[in-house]
Amino acid sequence: MLFFCVFKLNKYLYFIIMNTLLTVGSVAFDQIETPYGKTDKILGGAGTFSSLAASNFKITNNLVSVVGYDFPTQYLDILKNHNIDISGVEIKKDEKTFFWSGKYHQNMNQRDTLITELNSLGTFVPKIPENFKTPDVLMLGNLTPVIQRQVIEQLKQRPKIIAMDTMNFWMNSMLDELLTTISMVDVLIINDEETRQLSGEYFLPVAAKKILKMGPKFVIVKKGEHGALIFSEKQVFSAPALPLDIVFDPTGAGDTFAGGFTGYLAFTNDYSFENMKNAVIIGSALASFTVEKFGTEKIQNLSKIELLNRIDKFKNLTNFCLPEEIF
Amino acid sequence: MLFFCVFKLNKYLYFIIMNTLLTVGSVAFDQIETPYGKTDKILGGAGTFSSLAASNFKITNNLVSVVGYDFPTQYLDILKNHNIDISGVEIKKDEKTFFWSGKYHQNMNQRDTLITELNSLGTFVPKIPENFKTPDVLMLGNLTPVIQRQVIEQLKQRPKIIAMDTMNFWMNSMLDELLTTISMVDVLIINDEETRQLSGEYFLPVAAKKILKMGPKFVIVKKGEHGALIFSEKQVFSAPALPLDIVFDPTGAGDTFAGGFTGYLAFTNDYSFENMKNAVIIGSALASFTVEKFGTEKIQNLSKIELLNRIDKFKNLTNFCLPEEIF
Repeated sequence: MLFFCVFKLNKYLYFIIMNTLLTVGSVAFDQIETPYGKTDKILGGAGTFSSLAASNFKITNNLVSVVGYDFPTQYLDILKNHNIDISGVEIKKDEKTFFWSGKYHQNMNQRDTLITELNSLGTFVPKIPENFKTPDVLMLGNLTPVIQRQVIEQLKQRPKIIAMDTMNFWMNSMLDELLTTISMVDVLIINDEETRQLSGEYFLPVAAKKILKMGPKFVIVKKGEHGALIFSEKQVFSAPALPLDIVFDPTGAGDTFAGGFTGYLAFTNDYSFENMKNAVIIGSALASFTVEKFGTEKIQNLSKIELLNRIDKFKNLTNFCLPEEIF
Repeated sequence: MLFFCVFKLNKYLYFIIMNTLLTVGSVAFDQIETPYGKTDKILGGAGTFSSLAASNFKITNNLVSVVGYDFPTQYLDILKNHNIDISGVEIKKDEKTFFWSGKYHQNMNQRDTLITELNSLGTFVPKIPENFKTPDVLMLGNLTPVIQRQVIEQLKQRPKIIAMDTMNFWMNSMLDELLTTISMVDVLIINDEETRQLSGEYFLPVAAKKILKMGPKFVIVKKGEHGALIFSEKQVFSAPALPLDIVFDPTGAGDTFAGGFTGYLAFTNDYSFENMKNAVIIGSALASFTVEKFGTEKIQNLSKIELLNRIDKFKNLTNFCLPEEIF
């Protein structure tokens, strides 16, 4: 009951001050082929999925990114219509938008990248607008670790929580830069393979412990269809993935997870491990929508009731009630 | 509170009638090599792990199996000392005991079978003792589907729950026999690969639905380090695996799970989906001990307090507490 009251108080407070999330990540074109179909160039990018997921919460939702002259106004309007402040999305007049094309195989766990055209993202230097420089929560999408650091360095004060995504590419190509950036953040969000590569350890609890020594206070290990784990120094929580009848297109699921996670943290302004568990469940629930359709189609048309019902499914999926005296 | 009272009542009842579990499965020699070491011929077999796991509960714990003349008395004594009734374990005077030898690779998910000597198991025809013929719960370990059926046919009445394990070998070599046996049981316990092979479907909820149409009312999908799922026609529950610092030897983990699951069901005499969830958690908790040492070493020396503490870890691992009004 106490939690509920505190929460109501918090909800009341938001009418006075809405907490701020700053997301920095790509806004892009994706072209996707799966066993179920193929898209044209559609709206994609880590910053896109992440901000859209976070837009489910009453927060100040700021996005910093870059696109090219070819980026359609209606795509920017989708972001604006979700109350995402895109004044930090630079439009480069002489370059095209970042474009990624990939093909998924039957089991959806493996994909081939067919095309990567960095275009405007290749020369991206993030410029954080003045009114974006004091976020409560910062979400650094998967970009070069140097760019991620440049974002942190432009802020006027350290956010309450900095979360970052990264990938094996940066581990292979600029590990030292990556380790410097990792040492500056609170939450590292990576997948199981990346966790093993970064730590050099196979078993995830041992791997997570090693990564926690690199700086972060929390490590989130995304395991796709097997859910996600969050580790702190002394605690661990396991969130399942919703068993789905079909995974239509996994693109953006991880970014959706990150946006749901950071959006909920900013909204609740509670950075305890207990609340991180909730944030992981909410990120997982949102990600389970993203994979149901191509690109942002599902996540950009999500009703509050759909999300609440999905969260209930996660409760039913994991809750068990053993008697006080088991045997 | 109601559940607690019912449970207390049930506990009281057990002083009058203890529920009966009948397990039919191999009792064997295992020789195991992992990256952490190598054993001599040690106590193994599905029936062994399963009965030992079930011995944590106050039930009548009956085992039917076969061994050879070379099987040491002290191994049989281990079973007897856990209150397992081994009067149904036949000792063949002219044959040796089933022997399996395997080698695990670094990630423990893959293993090579080095030696399989069926010996006495190759000519095994189960003979169910008269006083074993009315079990409340029947656990059919991984044996030929013909043997599994012979067990069911010898019983005087249908058990309240029949659970069975099987493997891809029988799917490849005698699918029709297997399907007949599957149609006679309530709970099929298989791993994710086997679920996909048996159903011809990749996505597990779709696969489970197909298998439920083959007869069983419940399908349990074991996913190793990723935990287990239990499906009924309308419900699904996801149990995590405990993230372990080391998986020392996975041999017998699945059988331990099955024994914990069926042992708890027999003990509680409650075959609802809600209680199956508890049974899956308890099976998972017990299996998490088995993998910590070679063979039965850990599971045969387990204290009640160790098991209760481990179950608490599963609660902490999965419990989250979202506020009533999320947003």
